[in-house]
Amino acid sequence: MAAEIVNPRSDNGPDEGSREELFDPAFALHRGGKMAVQATVPVRDRDDLSLAYTPGVAKVCSAIAEQPELVHDYTWKSQVVAVVTDGSAVLGLGDIGPEASLPVMEGKAILFKQFGGVDAVPIALDCREVDEIVDTVARLAPSFGGINLEDISAPRCFEVERRLQERVDIPVFHDDQHGTAVVTLAALRNAAQLTGRTLGELRAVISGAGAAGVAIARILVEAGIGDVAVCDRKGIVSGDREDLTDVKRELAGFTNKAGLTGPLETALDGADVFIGVSGGTVPESAVAKMAKNALIFAMANPTPEIHPDVAHKYAAVVATGRSDYPNQINNVLAFPGIFAGALQVRASRITEGMKLAAAEALAAVVADELSADCVIPSPFDERVAPAVTAAVAAAARADGVARR
Amino acid sequence: MAAEIVNPRSDNGPDEGSREELFDPAFALHRGGKMAVQATVPVRDRDDLSLAYTPGVAKVCSAIAEQPELVHDYTWKSQVVAVVTDGSAVLGLGDIGPEASLPVMEGKAILFKQFGGVDAVPIALDCREVDEIVDTVARLAPSFGGINLEDISAPRCFEVERRLQERVDIPVFHDDQHGTAVVTLAALRNAAQLTGRTLGELRAVISGAGAAGVAIARILVEAGIGDVAVCDRKGIVSGDREDLTDVKRELAGFTNKAGLTGPLETALDGADVFIGVSGGTVPESAVAKMAKNALIFAMANPTPEIHPDVAHKYAAVVATGRSDYPNQINNVLAFPGIFAGALQVRASRITEGMKLAAAEALAAVVADELSADCVIPSPFDERVAPAVTAAVAAAARADGVARR
Repeated sequence: MAAEIVNPRSDNGPDEGSREELFDPAFALHRGGKMAVQATVPVRDRDDLSLAYTPGVAKVCSAIAEQPELVHDYTWKSQVVAVVTDGSAVLGLGDIGPEASLPVMEGKAILFKQFGGVDAVPIALDCREVDEIVDTVARLAPSFGGINLEDISAPRCFEVERRLQERVDIPVFHDDQHGTAVVTLAALRNAAQLTGRTLGELRAVISGAGAAGVAIARILVEAGIGDVAVCDRKGIVSGDREDLTDVKRELAGFTNKAGLTGPLETALDGADVFIGVSGGTVPESAVAKMAKNALIFAMANPTPEIHPDVAHKYAAVVATGRSDYPNQINNVLAFPGIFAGALQVRASRITEGMKLAAAEALAAVVADELSADCVIPSPFDERVAPAVTAAVAAAARADGVARR
Repeated sequence: MAAEIVNPRSDNGPDEGSREELFDPAFALHRGGKMAVQATVPVRDRDDLSLAYTPGVAKVCSAIAEQPELVHDYTWKSQVVAVVTDGSAVLGLGDIGPEASLPVMEGKAILFKQFGGVDAVPIALDCREVDEIVDTVARLAPSFGGINLEDISAPRCFEVERRLQERVDIPVFHDDQHGTAVVTLAALRNAAQLTGRTLGELRAVISGAGAAGVAIARILVEAGIGDVAVCDRKGIVSGDREDLTDVKRELAGFTNKAGLTGPLETALDGADVFIGVSGGTVPESAVAKMAKNALIFAMANPTPEIHPDVAHKYAAVVATGRSDYPNQINNVLAFPGIFAGALQVRASRITEGMKLAAAEALAAVVADELSADCVIPSPFDERVAPAVTAAVAAAARADGVARR
C-alpha cells in the first residue's frame, strides 16, 4: 500500500488529489472502499454451476415459493442486514448527503461483520421524505433479515423507524437511538453498582433531545431510573413549554417527574448523573453543583461536553465517546450482538425487552472487574458479542417475537 | 457437509423438510445462502478503527461532500452492482415473488464476482408497479456503480429499464434482454463466418417476443442482419396485426422487411437462422424447410425448441442454452465483463456500441478455433471476461459515456 499512500489516485495522474488526500493514511485506507462480496460456495466448473445456478437453483426457488419461511434457510437473508441512511445526520458532519455518507455506512457494515459475524450492505438513499424512505426500505425488506437505520436526522428518524417497523416483519433498529441507549444503560448500571446505588435512587440529566437523547431517556425510564430530565438548546423539556415537537412533548410526559423548568444548570443542581449527547459545553460551575459521587458520561465526539479532567474533580465515574479515555460508550458494543441475536431466532422486531437484555448482558461482561475505569467493556473484548447475542435471542423468545 | 445432506434443517429437528430437501445436494449447497460480505481492510484494534471508522472516516466523508466524484475513489461504489428483481419472471418458473427469487439473485451475484471480479448485492423488491420499481431503484443509486435488472416480466421490463436509465447516472442493464442478445450475436457472427456468410446475407427468425426476443431482434438489426422476423404465440409480428403491445409495434417497425404474415412455419421457410427464446416446440417439418446450412440456436431450457439431434439433420451449426451440448448460449459470457468494463471507466450508461463491442470481443475469443461445435467460448474460458471488459471500456470511451 506504500505507493497508494504517496498517491492514492495514481491512475488519474500524479497532479490530482489534495495534499490531504495524498498523505493522509485514512484516504489511502479508503481507496476502493472497505468491503467486498464473496461466494461461500464453489463456482469452479459446470457441476458447481448446475447446483448453485441453473438448473439446480430452480428446485430451491420452487421450495421457497411453496413454503415462504424456507427463504431463511436457503438464502443469506437471515444473515444480512441493510445499513440504511439518507445522509442527513452523519457523525458530527451533519447533512452531507447519501454519497458522502457511504464511507461511514461501509465502516458500519464491516463492524457488523467483524464484531457480530453479521453480513451487512450499505444503502445510502437519494430521498428525504419520511414516506419515500419508508416505502423504499419496505420494498427492500424481502432481501434482508434486518434493517439498521443510521444517521437519519431527528425528528424524521423516529417516524421512519416506527412506520417502517409497522410495514415489515423483520427488525428495524435505529442505531443512533437504541445502540447508544443500550450501551449507556449498561455503563450506568455498572457505575451505579460500583458506587453502591440502585438505578431507582438516581436522578439523571440528559443534555440533548435528538435521536440518542430521546432513546436514552426512554430506556432509563424503562430500566427504572429514579428520575430523568432531558434538556435541549432551550433548556429542560417540560410539559409547560409551548415549543415542543411531538416527540419532545411525549418525552415531557414520561420524564422530569420533578417538574423542573429552566436551563441545564438548574437540572444539574444535585443531579447524580450527567449524560451528554449534545456536543455543547457544560460550565464547570454547573458540574460542581452535582451530587456527590456523580456519574458523568460526556459522550460528544471529539469534544466531550465536560472535559474528563474537569469531570474527574466531581465524579466517581467518568465515561466518554472517545477511544483514548477509559469507559468508551461505543455503539459497536451493542448493535452487532443485537442483530446477531435477533437474526439467530428470526425475530420479527426488536422489543424493549431485547434492548434491556442487551444492556444487562453487556454490563455483566465486566461485572467481576468493575472499577471507576471499567464500567463498560472495551470494544475489542471478545466476550461482548456472544453475551449480547445470547441475551437478545433469549429475550426475543421470551417476548414472543422469535420465529425459531 | 455430509451431515447437512442427510438433514439440512437439523436444528429444527429431524422430522422437518421434504424428502427432496433432505437428499438433494442443491438444497444442501444452498443452506445459509451462497454469499457473504467481507472487510477488505483490517479492524483488529483501536488504531484500525480510528482509520476505517470514526474519527478517520470523517475526513473522507467531507472530501466526498466537497467533490462528489470522489465517492468512486473512496468507497466500493465503483465495484458493486445491485442485482434487482421483482421476482415476476424467474428462470423457467415464472412469477414466484421476491423471496423465492433470491437464490437466483444470489447465484447471479456470485457469478458477477467469480467471472468479472465485480461485487454484487441481490435486491428482490416487494413491489410490482413500474413507477414503484423505478422510484425505489433510483433512490438506491447512490450506493451502487450499476444496476443489473433481472427476471422482471415483459413488457414492464422495457419501461423499467428505459425510465430508470433516464433517472440515474449509472448503467442500467436488463440482463435477460441484453446479456442474451450479446451472446447470441457473438455466436451468430462466428457461425456465419464458419459457413462463409456475412450477417447481411442472413435472414433470421426469432421465436419469442419477450425480453430476450425483442433485445436479440434489436441487436441483430444494429449489427446489420439481412432481415429478421420475430414470432410470438400468434405468429409473425407484422405491422398489420392489431393485437400488438407498444413494444411489439415498435418491433414491427424495424423487423420483417419481407412483410411476412402467418405462423412461425411461414417465417422459417427458406430462413437461414432460427433463434428460439420461447420454450415452445418447432415441428421437424418446419425445420426441414429452412435454407441449406441453417444455423439453429434453440435456447429454451431445459427443453430446446428443436432437439439438437433433429436440428443437426438440417443445420450446419446448432447451439442451445444447455451446458451438456456444445455451443452453450450462456449470459455469464457477457454480463460480468460488460459491467466490469462499464465500472472500470465509470460509464454513465451502457450504449448500443458497448453491447456490440462486447459481442465482437466475445466472438473473437474463439476466432482461431472455430468449428461447428465451437462458435462461442465455454463459460469457463478465462479469456472471456478480460476480453469483454477491455472492449466495453474502450467502447464506453469512444461513445463518450466514460467518466475516467
